Amino acid sequence: MQEHTVRSYGEELRRLREMIARMGGLAERQVADAVSALVRRDAELATEVMARDAEIDALEREIENFCIRLLALRQPVGQDLRLVIASLKIIHAIERIGDYARNAAKRSIVLAQQPPLGSLNGFQRMAVLVQEELKGAMDALVNDDAARASEVWASDQSVDEVYNGIFREMLTHMMEDPRNITAATHLLFVAKNLERIGDHATNIAETVYYAVSGKPMTEERPKADSSPFAVVRPPA
Amino acid sequence: MQEHTVRSYGEELRRLREMIARMGGLAERQVADAVSALVRRDAELATEVMARDAEIDALEREIENFCIRLLALRQPVGQDLRLVIASLKIIHAIERIGDYARNAAKRSIVLAQQPPLGSLNGFQRMAVLVQEELKGAMDALVNDDAARASEVWASDQSVDEVYNGIFREMLTHMMEDPRNITAATHLLFVAKNLERIGDHATNIAETVYYAVSGKPMTEERPKADSSPFAVVRPPA
Repeated sequence: MQEHTVRSYGEELRRLREMIARMGGLAERQVADAVSALVRRDAELATEVMARDAEIDALEREIENFCIRLLALRQPVGQDLRLVIASLKIIHAIERIGDYARNAAKRSIVLAQQPPLGSLNGFQRMAVLVQEELKGAMDALVNDDAARASEVWASDQSVDEVYNGIFREMLTHMMEDPRNITAATHLLFVAKNLERIGDHATNIAETVYYAVSGKPMTEERPKADSSPFAVVRPPA
Repeated sequence: MQEHTVRSYGEELRRLREMIARMGGLAERQVADAVSALVRRDAELATEVMARDAEIDALEREIENFCIRLLALRQPVGQDLRLVIASLKIIHAIERIGDYARNAAKRSIVLAQQPPLGSLNGFQRMAVLVQEELKGAMDALVNDDAARASEVWASDQSVDEVYNGIFREMLTHMMEDPRNITAATHLLFVAKNLERIGDHATNIAETVYYAVSGKPMTEERPKADSSPFAVVRPPA
């Protein structure tokens, strides 16, 4: 009698991609909700985001164990081995994205009690951009689409540009009024979290590209984060 | 005739650990030099640190390829498979540590042109602590020492405490004089880089523990970074 719970190898690899895409979807939602909590000054939503991070962590462990079983039982080689190794890297990057979203949510709780600092449009813009990147990378993985992965990889520059704008804006707020310093500092770190999320999404796209095409990305990605060099002068 | 370049499987696994320990040693040095460059306002050393990061990246690729070959040719199971999977995680974490050191070095170049902000003892203290963690984790890996790994894992709290102190100190500098804002902001990010390096070293210790003992760490690590909740008031 046939054992019905035994999946075929091909099915297992498909299931692996789907599990990763689900994990990526959860992380996208976490980023969206963390920034909504920030913009709407919604401490309750922020608390939910912080609690939900455990789901992402659990999924990482589940997928990692799935990969280890695959390696032990199927002993994949070539393209399949590459996919499993790439999967381990990708889930780790998604887990980091989850952590950054949780951290942003945590800071938005403090920020809800601080005086508001003008429009937070830049943060919403960053959130939309990094969610698109993450979604693009997941689509590329599920559909075996190297061209899509390459597109995502090239798009991170606009995230960096918004980040650089926020960096200067926050320093200016601080210089105008010392009462802005606590809020502006936390907002700087939230912006940095979003910038790091964008970086991780780019790395995921790079890993997907390699897993799907078998070739590493060759060019250096244009990196537009100039903030480590930024200097803003106080008003005269 | 015997092929002398073929290593035994046991030798390959030993070589894997040694390569990782060498990569970890490089990262330790990068952290030490990045903080020296900061404290001594030495832009030349900072530039060297930034350039040397490519060596760490190259080692990561080399070790990853070594792991993939091991998986494909030796098809390890059980404890050996666990070691190879752990190695992939560890080298990725070391690569991240290298990136944080490079970023700290980059900021120290700007900082060398800003007015000095008092003592940077806290930064040196953090650098020493995270280097010890990293070294401890590498020793645990090379010597198959689960107890040592567990010790490192538990020690990260003091890094967080120093970080919290720096966070409040920098906010206070900003509030005292807006001319401090640019320098204090960059220093905040350097402190954050060091705190993240500590987190990665802790994660490495956790991964080593699992690889060596076969059991996951069970407790939640005490996390003492309270800075996401910090509020500092401007002088009245």
